Amino acid sequence: MVRPLTPLLDRVASPADLKHLSDDELDQLAHELRAETISAVSETGGHLGAGLGVVELTVAIHAVFDTPRDKLVWDVSHQCYPHKILTGRRDRIRTLRQKGGLSGFTKRSESPYDPFGAAHSSTSISAALGFVTARDLGGAPETGVGDAIAVIGDGAMSAGMAFEAMNNAGHLDKRLIVILNDNEMSIAPPVGAMSSYLSRLYAGAPFQDLKAAAKGALSLLPHHFYEGAKRAKDVFKHVTIGGTLFEELGFEYIGPIDGHDMEMLLSVLRMVKARADGPVLIHAITEKGKGYAPAEEATDRGHGVSKFDVRTGEQKKAPSNAPSYTSVFAESLLQHAAEDDRITAITAAMPDGTGLNLFAERYPSRCFDVGIAEQHAVTFAAGQAAGGLKPFCALYSTFLQRGYDQVVHDVAIQRLPVRFAIDRAGLVGADGATHAGAFDIAFLANLPGIVVMAAADEAELKHMVATAVAHDDGPIAFRFPRGEGVGVDMPERGEVLEIGKGRIMRHGKRVAILSFGTRLQEVELAAEKLSKRGISPTVADARFAKPLDRDLVLQLARDHEALITIEEGAIGGFGSHVAQLLAEEGVFDHGLVFRSMVLPDIFIDQASPRDMYAVAGMNSENIEAKVLDVLGVARMDAARA
Amino acid sequence: MVRPLTPLLDRVASPADLKHLSDDELDQLAHELRAETISAVSETGGHLGAGLGVVELTVAIHAVFDTPRDKLVWDVSHQCYPHKILTGRRDRIRTLRQKGGLSGFTKRSESPYDPFGAAHSSTSISAALGFVTARDLGGAPETGVGDAIAVIGDGAMSAGMAFEAMNNAGHLDKRLIVILNDNEMSIAPPVGAMSSYLSRLYAGAPFQDLKAAAKGALSLLPHHFYEGAKRAKDVFKHVTIGGTLFEELGFEYIGPIDGHDMEMLLSVLRMVKARADGPVLIHAITEKGKGYAPAEEATDRGHGVSKFDVRTGEQKKAPSNAPSYTSVFAESLLQHAAEDDRITAITAAMPDGTGLNLFAERYPSRCFDVGIAEQHAVTFAAGQAAGGLKPFCALYSTFLQRGYDQVVHDVAIQRLPVRFAIDRAGLVGADGATHAGAFDIAFLANLPGIVVMAAADEAELKHMVATAVAHDDGPIAFRFPRGEGVGVDMPERGEVLEIGKGRIMRHGKRVAILSFGTRLQEVELAAEKLSKRGISPTVADARFAKPLDRDLVLQLARDHEALITIEEGAIGGFGSHVAQLLAEEGVFDHGLVFRSMVLPDIFIDQASPRDMYAVAGMNSENIEAKVLDVLGVARMDAARA
Repeated sequence: MVRPLTPLLDRVASPADLKHLSDDELDQLAHELRAETISAVSETGGHLGAGLGVVELTVAIHAVFDTPRDKLVWDVSHQCYPHKILTGRRDRIRTLRQKGGLSGFTKRSESPYDPFGAAHSSTSISAALGFVTARDLGGAPETGVGDAIAVIGDGAMSAGMAFEAMNNAGHLDKRLIVILNDNEMSIAPPVGAMSSYLSRLYAGAPFQDLKAAAKGALSLLPHHFYEGAKRAKDVFKHVTIGGTLFEELGFEYIGPIDGHDMEMLLSVLRMVKARADGPVLIHAITEKGKGYAPAEEATDRGHGVSKFDVRTGEQKKAPSNAPSYTSVFAESLLQHAAEDDRITAITAAMPDGTGLNLFAERYPSRCFDVGIAEQHAVTFAAGQAAGGLKPFCALYSTFLQRGYDQVVHDVAIQRLPVRFAIDRAGLVGADGATHAGAFDIAFLANLPGIVVMAAADEAELKHMVATAVAHDDGPIAFRFPRGEGVGVDMPERGEVLEIGKGRIMRHGKRVAILSFGTRLQEVELAAEKLSKRGISPTVADARFAKPLDRDLVLQLARDHEALITIEEGAIGGFGSHVAQLLAEEGVFDHGLVFRSMVLPDIFIDQASPRDMYAVAGMNSENIEAKVLDVLGVARMDAARA
Repeated sequence: MVRPLTPLLDRVASPADLKHLSDDELDQLAHELRAETISAVSETGGHLGAGLGVVELTVAIHAVFDTPRDKLVWDVSHQCYPHKILTGRRDRIRTLRQKGGLSGFTKRSESPYDPFGAAHSSTSISAALGFVTARDLGGAPETGVGDAIAVIGDGAMSAGMAFEAMNNAGHLDKRLIVILNDNEMSIAPPVGAMSSYLSRLYAGAPFQDLKAAAKGALSLLPHHFYEGAKRAKDVFKHVTIGGTLFEELGFEYIGPIDGHDMEMLLSVLRMVKARADGPVLIHAITEKGKGYAPAEEATDRGHGVSKFDVRTGEQKKAPSNAPSYTSVFAESLLQHAAEDDRITAITAAMPDGTGLNLFAERYPSRCFDVGIAEQHAVTFAAGQAAGGLKPFCALYSTFLQRGYDQVVHDVAIQRLPVRFAIDRAGLVGADGATHAGAFDIAFLANLPGIVVMAAADEAELKHMVATAVAHDDGPIAFRFPRGEGVGVDMPERGEVLEIGKGRIMRHGKRVAILSFGTRLQEVELAAEKLSKRGISPTVADARFAKPLDRDLVLQLARDHEALITIEEGAIGGFGSHVAQLLAEEGVFDHGLVFRSMVLPDIFIDQASPRDMYAVAGMNSENIEAKVLDVLGVARMDAARA
């Protein structure tokens, strides 16, 4: 593999080395950094477009500010690969997103240059404001805390928590630097009134005006920036037609500026560093995928890519054997939507990720992309349900955490029939711990009146979509994992499942394994292997964590010496509900070998899903071992009796 | 008790009756409605100030719009008492917030005039937008859906989800009416940049200007409203100095108007009803507590009151025997803050409710009221912790749900030492199901690396504050209930507890009760009563749900025939962690009578906390019965052996 020539970058061991470079050299460095980023991601796959969009910004920030004393907080942080290369991690950059390698996001435990980790969006202003107060109150007395700089995308600005943070920052009026990285493209094209507003700012204020001002010496700045004499009290207040919204929230608005123009970036950042005395928002226009033609030309601007050929941009994707769970969900929903025009679909800025892009194409008036706004998504769905519609709210498990109170307060308490399609449930692979869907079973199944299902395979998912369409008596949720299905035959139509009824997959003896979700495949594999050793476990698929199939659970307990539950979730979920039932019914009173296999009490770092489940002890070998273990216990019992 | 004379109100059985009243009569009706509200709350206690502030608004909305076909969504909805009186519930208004009586909030199951329940803030725009889409897509075909009107306070506008909803509404550009009820006072005085912005709007635009315009005939309106010819394309666009922020988000801004001027309200609402074709925001200035001197003069504007004497305003409060948990928390924290200037405190618009008003007074620079913004509150705290401070994030259990993803993603995954003081944990009484703190044990204790404590009494709370101050290795949370402590002796200083260690309160035999939190009092009461019958249970206080005191749990299981856990929380929490440990350790293999007493699988309606716990089956009698029950089981075992 040919690596790019990077003579300047080769001399940069840490951001301190940037201080010795001229502005022209910094510009050159950006080119090398871009080439190195492309080269690295071509080997690892990962988030390409976002990083390419902030190469100049990354160099400029590290050149002007004193990281890591100054705290640079990348929002979402999938754009951090160039930052990692510059901050002493170039030697490991080709291990990105791999087991034991660098995280694809910023991570505090990885480097002091990552003062705050991220992966979910819109947290950076809050975190940076935390650092600002720590600076003022003498936090971290050993090292001190310098400036705080948040870099946040335009898509992330639609999330309520970014607004909450700005509202608080404008009120506190402390020196804080927010760089709005406006590429008019989060993952999907942007939606929402804020996005339109930003576009108007961009359209209305050509770069050159500000560039001329920014290029001037610091001493000259007040004159250049002093426009609109009536209102502008501060030298930074760039009052053209724009920025009012941010100004009304107490920020000084500077922009829009060309985020790929190194000279302009350096000028503006130096000026801000020298003069800011309150919250400042710098509006930088960038292009996602900038400088790499295949990314620039892709509809998603090279958002997430597999390994690829640098020369052609061609990605090396493994052929898939089965449809993805996401597409099965999306196509099943379309099938029902054709027959029932009260079905609507809601996504929070993830039309592609949730498969709802298909729905949006076919039924644009019934599909709602609300932007990164999970709180609103859930209550909006609740309002639709109260109005007689059948909303499907499709969210990743980990992002549903953003709308948890709304699930409790607006949906469950009111028993409104919102349908939650929970994608990426369980461990997700390269995105690591921040994207794991580990907690939804526990935090949903204890809500009164909700139905919680998990699909064991893609055909089951189809049945669960049908079941959710039919269920009008309160909320219902179904979870399914990232990735491909297992290749089972697909029914023409989904069947409506009986609420609260599981199914026995395999009748066996002595030990029963009750699975909730897609671990069923591994359970069956384990059962196969065990049967060759003369051990034949009963295997059942619970389908429902709530309501629990009491009869099935009690029957399995009664007919076996041991009962093992398994689920792709943390403690407190399915297994806990089973244990509670067994306790209440007095099953433990006289002894039952009971084990509940849940995700372990650690955040599991990125790896392949299979490797992650190995860490979790949830693959077929682990299940097999667990069965042998409990039968050992049971055998000893028999010997004693 | 003298009831007010209400001749007009007496003729109003439902909002339909308002259609026959003249504007002058509607104004008179508002006066009667105010008197009736005061009279009712004097008998029941409850939220007084908020309702008094919207009396005219309530009458005007019901007079102009066609509820319940038009969907009126009250944000938070503690201001809904006048609305309940007008919508067929006057006969039960003196049962407010009592067991079996009317809820203190809007509630779908109570009336068709409550199309969407609320109690947490900032949900109304999302819900109303849901109704708007249901209207356009033919939801509820039987009744149809008309207009959607959200009434939201200025305090609630600081929450991210309100912004998310406006961002989406501005984008969808559908007819939607938002009434911003600006009383410059949510519960505490308002904070945040948005609040300052609203004040500037108010200061800049005297009522009269708009009033003159609004009073004109509909046909004349375009001329009156047509100011600022350059920008105003829409007749409603009231372009004075203000409203730009809302306009930039795609709303038409009308205001500010006097929210107590019936003529103005009726004019503006009629105009909006006749002409709106997109999202409209009406900015109404009101006065919390309006029209009742004792409320107007109170610092909290009569936000929440006990029963009172209408004539004098004097409240009838039961004398308290012990300090409230809230004040014990607040004073303990102050004690530590005096010795450690890195301790900070964060509240989300609840300085009084959390007791942090004391902290704010003593250490204003270290206390942060971020407004109703729990998501930001948590991540802001995480940023402070990353910056070397020791933040205490004080939230009610039910509102912590708003920041759940931030607890997972920004705090727990990064193992940052944020201290969560979780007030109102457990059942809370008159505020009912929406305010119950039922889920925090489950949704926190399954997060890797967090410490979760519950205080058994107020002295324990003091120890837990000290423990949280000392604990710097990751997040730590302590929960405590609403109301008074139990009257135990208070130590001069809190002691730092050993992490993950419980304590045995009483050594007994055969059955052990392991309590997590303040049910300990009831457990001890039950043990007292049982001991008189010759049954002497062991009683232990777990103190920690995480890390669990494994030795204590296993010892109790080993030394007793039966083990009962009890906690003021839903399934999935403490008891589930104990069950998991017992299962893993094989304790169930050979039999253990194990029961886990958790909150039942229902949302429990308002009543006294004691009555609510009776419904939950968690008072001393229930515990006593449970012990007798399990011992019956245990005895049968013995007989069989």
